[in-house]
Amino acid sequence: MKTTVDALLSTVDFAGTLLFALEGAIAAIHGNLDFLGMVVLAFATAVGGGILRDLLIGATPPSAIRDWRYGAIALAGAATAFFFHQLVQEIPVMLMLTLDAAGLALFAISGAGKALEYGIHPAMAIVMGGITGVGGGTVRDVLLAQVPAVLRADVYATAALLGAAVLVIGLKLNLPRIAVGVAAASACFLLRMAAILFHWNLPKVSG
Amino acid sequence: MKTTVDALLSTVDFAGTLLFALEGAIAAIHGNLDFLGMVVLAFATAVGGGILRDLLIGATPPSAIRDWRYGAIALAGAATAFFFHQLVQEIPVMLMLTLDAAGLALFAISGAGKALEYGIHPAMAIVMGGITGVGGGTVRDVLLAQVPAVLRADVYATAALLGAAVLVIGLKLNLPRIAVGVAAASACFLLRMAAILFHWNLPKVSG
Amino acid sequence: MKTTVDALLSTVDFAGTLLFALEGAIAAIHGNLDFLGMVVLAFATAVGGGILRDLLIGATPPSAIRDWRYGAIALAGAATAFFFHQLVQEIPVMLMLTLDAAGLALFAISGAGKALEYGIHPAMAIVMGGITGVGGGTVRDVLLAQVPAVLRADVYATAALLGAAVLVIGLKLNLPRIAVGVAAASACFLLRMAAILFHWNLPKVSG
Repeated sequence: MKTTVDALLSTVDFAGTLLFALEGAIAAIHGNLDFLGMVVLAFATAVGGGILRDLLIGATPPSAIRDWRYGAIALAGAATAFFFHQLVQEIPVMLMLTLDAAGLALFAISGAGKALEYGIHPAMAIVMGGITGVGGGTVRDVLLAQVPAVLRADVYATAALLGAAVLVIGLKLNLPRIAVGVAAASACFLLRMAAILFHWNLPKVSG
Repeated sequence: MKTTVDALLSTVDFAGTLLFALEGAIAAIHGNLDFLGMVVLAFATAVGGGILRDLLIGATPPSAIRDWRYGAIALAGAATAFFFHQLVQEIPVMLMLTLDAAGLALFAISGAGKALEYGIHPAMAIVMGGITGVGGGTVRDVLLAQVPAVLRADVYATAALLGAAVLVIGLKLNLPRIAVGVAAASACFLLRMAAILFHWNLPKVSG
Repeated sequence: MKTTVDALLSTVDFAGTLLFALEGAIAAIHGNLDFLGMVVLAFATAVGGGILRDLLIGATPPSAIRDWRYGAIALAGAATAFFFHQLVQEIPVMLMLTLDAAGLALFAISGAGKALEYGIHPAMAIVMGGITGVGGGTVRDVLLAQVPAVLRADVYATAALLGAAVLVIGLKLNLPRIAVGVAAASACFLLRMAAILFHWNLPKVSG
């Protein structure tokens, strides 16, 4: 049973990594980068958030460095985008956004959970969940010399923080782990999808 | 006595963090970021230098991750800038620059001192003081996709390095700690203020 | 004998660091930075890759922080570029490119070797070799608010990865260390020089 759940989680984690890698590789194509640039952006987008989190919570070497499979997945994502870029770019936008929301939920709650395991204060564990979810995209945008999209508009990091908060509070209240995980992932996913459907944005100070 | 001094230092440290957080949040407003972007830039500006220093000297997890109060202060700074941005922007420029110079002095000498405690070579401890002072602003500017102001103009990092150097040399000569700290902070603060008043800049190679 | 080889390696390492520091300082001049900016870019270009690698493989504090001589070399590189910038800029381009290719080879194989010593998986040790070779230039370009050149064009990181791969495979096959090192450095250097001479570029997806 344990093994089955672990294998399932691992598979889901690798699926999320592949998806984020694909998104990074596509951003590299739009930024006119070469194949190496695609691999780097695929890797940065897919595991940048997890690496940042691991450095910050003191879990070194980061799992994406210790486990070669993350690198292999990033390479596969870049190669897929390179050879099948027309197919990849024909994936309906709404499908990509939905998958991305699922990946965000997964990264946010796994990041917050790992921070708790490393004894980080619950409030900062929520922040670590947010960083795991959006750190990769932030590194990608910095490498493209752009202001990270996540800072400018849209309810994206907020959804990650909500999911992480639900997870941390649920675990601190000793509620059943699986129920908490499902509730946390759903909270993140649903807020993100609602923000997409209803064009929600965070408030700004009108300069 | 010890407790009083510690409490004083801690209060001053939190005051400096709040000030830098406010500056980060204001930069976010000018960069047209949303509320989440304001929180991220407040946090990055306020504790980015200390986090960089802690990662480089091997003090993990960095204190700004271990202690949730830094994150709370950054959030408070962003919220203040968000709700009272007109008031905040009416603070006289000279007052902000003076407070900022005081914050810079504080961060530079505390950063150099911590590096020495972790057994870093005195010359590199001075560099760590500089990084603690200006690292946060550098991360903020990178996130805004700008060349960090500190690299382009002005005597700013130089003041941080001077303060850190006075501290490290004083401590290595076994002079009294409090006198050394006051002298180091004054050196940084006075050089920075003189640079502002007399419009000092570092030399450049005219390309 | 051991001492002679070590002293030789150390000298070569410092020579490579000085060269990369010079290149960083020259980039700072072109970016209109002041003297402090030149020192920062010299340091970032020369040791940024090694620091990134050390943080990622868990070798903290990074050697460039533990050993003050790297900082001193970066300062010397910046000072040289500042005082003798006309002489430095008259160095023939081809000579600089050749020296740079040699520095790249050195950094890539030393980085991959160190990662192996720290128990990193061979595939990721190759990546660490690449990061050691090109990480400094990437940090420099990010600080200049530019898309890192290494991601956009040219066979540069690819040469670093090739050299690192030859080293890792050779060591894993238990071939003689010196022969493997020479073969790995030659592979990187020759691929890089061929790419320069024949204007090789990596393929891109035509957006």
